[in-house]
Amino acid sequence: MTRPFNFAPGPATLPLEVLQQAANEMLDWRGTGMGVMEMSHRSKEFISIAEQAEADLREILSIPSNYKVLFMQGGAIAENAVLPMNLSRGARVDYAITGSWSQKSAKEARKYADVHVVASNESDHHTTLPAYGSWQLSDNAAYVHVCSNETVHGVEMHELPDLAALGSNAPLVMDCSSHIASRTIDWSRVGMAYGGAQKNIGPAGMTMVIVREDLIGHAMAITPSAFDYKVVADNGSMYNTPPTYAWYIAGLVFQWIKQQRETTPQGELTGLAAIEARNVAKAALLYGYLDESGFYTNPVAVNARSRMNVPFFLPSDDLNDAFLAGAKAHNLLQLKGHKIVGGMRASIYNAMPLAGVQALVSYMKDFAVSHG
Amino acid sequence: MTRPFNFAPGPATLPLEVLQQAANEMLDWRGTGMGVMEMSHRSKEFISIAEQAEADLREILSIPSNYKVLFMQGGAIAENAVLPMNLSRGARVDYAITGSWSQKSAKEARKYADVHVVASNESDHHTTLPAYGSWQLSDNAAYVHVCSNETVHGVEMHELPDLAALGSNAPLVMDCSSHIASRTIDWSRVGMAYGGAQKNIGPAGMTMVIVREDLIGHAMAITPSAFDYKVVADNGSMYNTPPTYAWYIAGLVFQWIKQQRETTPQGELTGLAAIEARNVAKAALLYGYLDESGFYTNPVAVNARSRMNVPFFLPSDDLNDAFLAGAKAHNLLQLKGHKIVGGMRASIYNAMPLAGVQALVSYMKDFAVSHG
Repeated sequence: MTRPFNFAPGPATLPLEVLQQAANEMLDWRGTGMGVMEMSHRSKEFISIAEQAEADLREILSIPSNYKVLFMQGGAIAENAVLPMNLSRGARVDYAITGSWSQKSAKEARKYADVHVVASNESDHHTTLPAYGSWQLSDNAAYVHVCSNETVHGVEMHELPDLAALGSNAPLVMDCSSHIASRTIDWSRVGMAYGGAQKNIGPAGMTMVIVREDLIGHAMAITPSAFDYKVVADNGSMYNTPPTYAWYIAGLVFQWIKQQRETTPQGELTGLAAIEARNVAKAALLYGYLDESGFYTNPVAVNARSRMNVPFFLPSDDLNDAFLAGAKAHNLLQLKGHKIVGGMRASIYNAMPLAGVQALVSYMKDFAVSHG
Repeated sequence: MTRPFNFAPGPATLPLEVLQQAANEMLDWRGTGMGVMEMSHRSKEFISIAEQAEADLREILSIPSNYKVLFMQGGAIAENAVLPMNLSRGARVDYAITGSWSQKSAKEARKYADVHVVASNESDHHTTLPAYGSWQLSDNAAYVHVCSNETVHGVEMHELPDLAALGSNAPLVMDCSSHIASRTIDWSRVGMAYGGAQKNIGPAGMTMVIVREDLIGHAMAITPSAFDYKVVADNGSMYNTPPTYAWYIAGLVFQWIKQQRETTPQGELTGLAAIEARNVAKAALLYGYLDESGFYTNPVAVNARSRMNVPFFLPSDDLNDAFLAGAKAHNLLQLKGHKIVGGMRASIYNAMPLAGVQALVSYMKDFAVSHG
């Protein structure tokens, strides 16, 4: 069959080339006679896969050498607890609320630390980004937590807060699950970035933690050893058996990112720059159409609109079922919005080609004409 | 190339049929146009995969309906903390020490509970199984923990302790990572069984927890929500995004187990009974040869020898490198012993065919002749 365009919010569509290579290597990785799933994590074969993946991610995201890259388990939801266990020392921590994910993070952190909310867009139904200058930062927070892309509400930070300039000495910690590897990261503003892999990186079941090494080593006594960043770092993410196959797939995705090329008016871009340019173009196409359609609406403030997750509404919820059925008939899958927000949501991660967004917009136009 | 026999202790060899099906379905699961890795865990497609896998595991292991089956993350090492968080209420817990894994479990539990060691085979270098009648059980333990198969030391419980008959009211909790689904389980003696998937079930990165439902719902306040058995159970193992691809592979392995047939003097056996008969035959062949060889030795007491993990020694460690190199040349992989024990170790899980053990014994005979 024709490969459909899959707009799922995560687990999400993966590059076709990655899936093809994984299928080809399933029974025999490079003449070893073993599939990657069958390799001991201590084998030299798997260690070479693991080290290459880390090196490629460091290259793609320009991760400075004084940051540890940890391959963990549990997803961002587990990290909501694991983070304060590791970095809070049970003391004051600052949280910015910009959507359902940061709200969930703050709630879980209250089990372990004194959580102070520095800003919230709740009164705007999580459709805006509170101006950084208005944040009520603590004097003594162990860290300041943000969700840099809210998957459910479609709110993205296009520039990270400069905490030092705002008068805070705390490191910024960001849950970047749903836009990691979609754009560059200004590490001078970031102490730790973390995220589930199941959007832009690979299969569900792996969690990336990228943390400045001076921040670790002070975990609370109740921290499970398997989730103590220092223990994980000291053991090369192999204190417990890592999710080896997910690590391998992530490595294939990193290779794919490095191979991307995109010709733009500014010249030919490669790697993450190519990916980011494509993401900008995809988002511009979809938001541009939403705003001009006079039929569909997106509720998010223009400066806060996510390049990755685009919630939108039809004029009436009564049209939703027809829209989704028609979309499926056009090979456009998984467009139903999150139950908290309702309506539709198109997740357009790295592996969604521009052609997918073009096909979606084309279908949306036809649907608007026939139902307008 | 000829598929080698892979004796890795985990991640470990998987059934060839499972890998072939996974490769075939990588880009398109049953005409959906999506690979399983790309499916939202909330999609009806993935939910059907997840439910079938649970139903098959319940059937294979005859899990009673009052036990919850949880698909989690972190492996047995994370469970060493997650278990006491969930079941200890911070009070007294009993641990039997039979090898390095139960030792590690007891050490981690001390962070959360009052750990009492009921028995230990440490003075025997973890080569025996302390008689159950000698265990010093507490009057008031929240649970009694055992590792029912010690992967490193090769010690297996062939009959589980009957705690009630031994005078304890506590539920038995067993780490059965390395022999789950290799034999039947007497649930009348078990409150909870858990294990990493990467031996007999599937890829690394998934953790099985099978727990009697009356035991959950009393987690300590510090328990991360993602690891609170009650939260996980109430959300069908989807409170956080589960390791969907590992869950799918596990489902294929469960189907494979159900399809097994083995003709024995007692008639034709199917499913887990066929698997168990094959495991008995494989272990009998290998231990039988070890004992008669006059060259190799296995240090474990006969009544405690594991069907899954068989450590053995050559007459001199000076021969180890030659043995491993020759094994590799004969397509017999990953036989090096764990660093704690030294020597060799053959892990002969469900997916290792009898032919693999025959090939190993044949090679061992030749090696003994040429180096004896």
